Amino acid sequence: MDTTQSGGYSSQSDVTQSSSVNRSASAKLEIHLFQRLLQELGKPPFKVSLWNGQVIHSPQQPVAHLTVRKPGILRKVVFNPVLHFGDAYSNGEVEVEGDLVKFLEHAYRAGAKLDSAGTFKQRILPLLHRRKNNSLSGSRENIHHHYDIGNDFYRLWLDQRMLYTCAYFPNPELSLEDAQLAKMHHVCRKVLLRPGESVVEAGCGWGALALHMARHYGVKVKAFNISHEQIIYAREQARIEGLEQQIEFIEDDYRNITGRFDAFVSVGMLEHVGTDHYRELGNVISRVLPKHGRGLIHSIGRNRPAAMNAWIEKRIFPGAHPPSLSEMSSIFEPNSLSILDVENLRLHYSKTLQHWLTRFEENKERVKTMFDEKFVRMWRLYLSGSIASFNIGELQLFQAVFAPHDNNDLPWSREHLYRAG
Amino acid sequence: MDTTQSGGYSSQSDVTQSSSVNRSASAKLEIHLFQRLLQELGKPPFKVSLWNGQVIHSPQQPVAHLTVRKPGILRKVVFNPVLHFGDAYSNGEVEVEGDLVKFLEHAYRAGAKLDSAGTFKQRILPLLHRRKNNSLSGSRENIHHHYDIGNDFYRLWLDQRMLYTCAYFPNPELSLEDAQLAKMHHVCRKVLLRPGESVVEAGCGWGALALHMARHYGVKVKAFNISHEQIIYAREQARIEGLEQQIEFIEDDYRNITGRFDAFVSVGMLEHVGTDHYRELGNVISRVLPKHGRGLIHSIGRNRPAAMNAWIEKRIFPGAHPPSLSEMSSIFEPNSLSILDVENLRLHYSKTLQHWLTRFEENKERVKTMFDEKFVRMWRLYLSGSIASFNIGELQLFQAVFAPHDNNDLPWSREHLYRAG
Repeated sequence: MDTTQSGGYSSQSDVTQSSSVNRSASAKLEIHLFQRLLQELGKPPFKVSLWNGQVIHSPQQPVAHLTVRKPGILRKVVFNPVLHFGDAYSNGEVEVEGDLVKFLEHAYRAGAKLDSAGTFKQRILPLLHRRKNNSLSGSRENIHHHYDIGNDFYRLWLDQRMLYTCAYFPNPELSLEDAQLAKMHHVCRKVLLRPGESVVEAGCGWGALALHMARHYGVKVKAFNISHEQIIYAREQARIEGLEQQIEFIEDDYRNITGRFDAFVSVGMLEHVGTDHYRELGNVISRVLPKHGRGLIHSIGRNRPAAMNAWIEKRIFPGAHPPSLSEMSSIFEPNSLSILDVENLRLHYSKTLQHWLTRFEENKERVKTMFDEKFVRMWRLYLSGSIASFNIGELQLFQAVFAPHDNNDLPWSREHLYRAG
Repeated sequence: MDTTQSGGYSSQSDVTQSSSVNRSASAKLEIHLFQRLLQELGKPPFKVSLWNGQVIHSPQQPVAHLTVRKPGILRKVVFNPVLHFGDAYSNGEVEVEGDLVKFLEHAYRAGAKLDSAGTFKQRILPLLHRRKNNSLSGSRENIHHHYDIGNDFYRLWLDQRMLYTCAYFPNPELSLEDAQLAKMHHVCRKVLLRPGESVVEAGCGWGALALHMARHYGVKVKAFNISHEQIIYAREQARIEGLEQQIEFIEDDYRNITGRFDAFVSVGMLEHVGTDHYRELGNVISRVLPKHGRGLIHSIGRNRPAAMNAWIEKRIFPGAHPPSLSEMSSIFEPNSLSILDVENLRLHYSKTLQHWLTRFEENKERVKTMFDEKFVRMWRLYLSGSIASFNIGELQLFQAVFAPHDNNDLPWSREHLYRAG
């Protein structure tokens, strides 16, 4: 191990020799370790200013300038970069000037390379075992943590219909409102809804898709969700729109779905199900769909099985796990469900998140009043980090359409998804 | 175990008591076991006439009438129905009157139920271990077995361009010729071919797709195939069409592909690769595709991992295995390839096979002259059985489009696949 130079990084000190009392052996070690981490990360283009005035320059033109406000932070970051950088940024102990998304793209890309080389595996694998349990009661707790922090907060930066899932931009210039509308039509067309049919929705959020299906496709919907605040909101919307006869919003877990339906849809729930429960989900789907039934699952995914970003899993989405297609197959394969169509909308989620981040920043003062500065920084990091992950291909967005294996009543092409109007 | 009645089947004897000397204890046992098999299969609607004149009636209206011409056949069929029925049919020891496809649909569906109940697992699993090895030399031998039996034979019943893979019927009334043309355009559009680009094709058959890409999309193609007869034919076609400058037909294995290409396509080869070699195939793809590259694999598949139909694997396609999507993921996941689009064209393959079977039957006398009656019966069974398998959802046809994980130069929708012209 070469300790005589710092891998291309040059280190300058703005402080005079006389302040050397502050530069304890411990701080020296911390800075040294951090420089090793930068080196391991492939020398990303960051300028780093330390609490003692020291500046670490990158060999390339920097995309961002990090300021580390106090000692002790970097030691933790070296041990678990994703988790502790996230916490330090949230607390304001680390500041990022420049393009936060670009900074995160570089950091994640570098981290991913390191992970695939196996170097950091030991740090990440133990987190897997601490993953939150998505049992019936565990799920309620995990979902409450994220979704019940207040409809007023989400209303500040989501679209008017309150869709908190990837929109669909057949044209990237579409407004967020139009792209969410396009997404709902895309989903309804994919499951071939016909007037008078029945649909069950697992994880219905604030009810936008259920309302849309009832309003535009003339179907009856049973929509399940374990978030109390969301269900209350959704019921109120159905009342306002006069759709109460067509939609039943049920505050219950997907595992308790009973009955038979022409279609099953689930948009943005699978991330919270947990791979241990995929087979169970498949059993539910298989139980509720008749031979002519169709289904769709829309979920954040991965190119290969991997642990969730440790900071997001711990601070933002406890119990969350975006699956790879091979992991998703344990929903379908044991239940003789046939995959008909998979579409990857990865860049659509980046675009959706960019809209959300813009609106969030426009409303950051109100968010700060509702919560506090730390909350603003956490959510900025979460939204920016998610954009970065979709941009670099670390996260995917899969829409999978499926049917019982012997459903032969299927269209001959997907052209109907792209017909105007 | 109830041995007093045969599960709803009634048995009549047309022979008189005086011929009872022929009805040995062994034949009685054989008939009894076969009746048990029918019972286990859920009493499919078949009428069965035995060599001794005995008739087994089904409780339902029969879709087909089986005639078993001599003793000893049914004993084997009971032991391994798929393999030994196939052989007995090929040899003419068993005749099927009525709709052969419908007969096979009932038989396969019943067999699949039995398999999923685990009863027949012991008979099928050992076959897995006898599967032909797709090493470099093993592949040559396996491919030679099927594809080098003569271009003249295939010309009798394939379309004019000699495509021996699933066609694409955006409209089911399309002719086979037009549907094969539509398939090639569909594939080219999916991988976003642009003039001047380079394409590598793994497993190019008689060269139709390579010729199509060069002719209509202005790309340069390197096309690999280990079937000697097919490569000779393909080179001759390129010469006739004056496309020799644009296409290189290479008689070699996909594992020996070198260089870099804008697109990778493989239509109907994966079935012959073997799951043990998927990772290797993924390595090849990953090695040849630059960041902006795109790829497509078109393959027969399954809803869940399962052994190949034992008779087809033994007599028609040694070494073949149609994979489930979870099996296919071992091509993509270890190589950071991102699945962009999966389309299941199951019923298109049934339709394609129906066209082939019709043309085959129209030319059966010529086939008989080229080979023999047994060959005609084998191929009739293989084509009919494949139609049945696609119809009942036992086989799928997956077209998977993929790209390196960081290719962001992607269209925002799949609408371009469905534009007229």
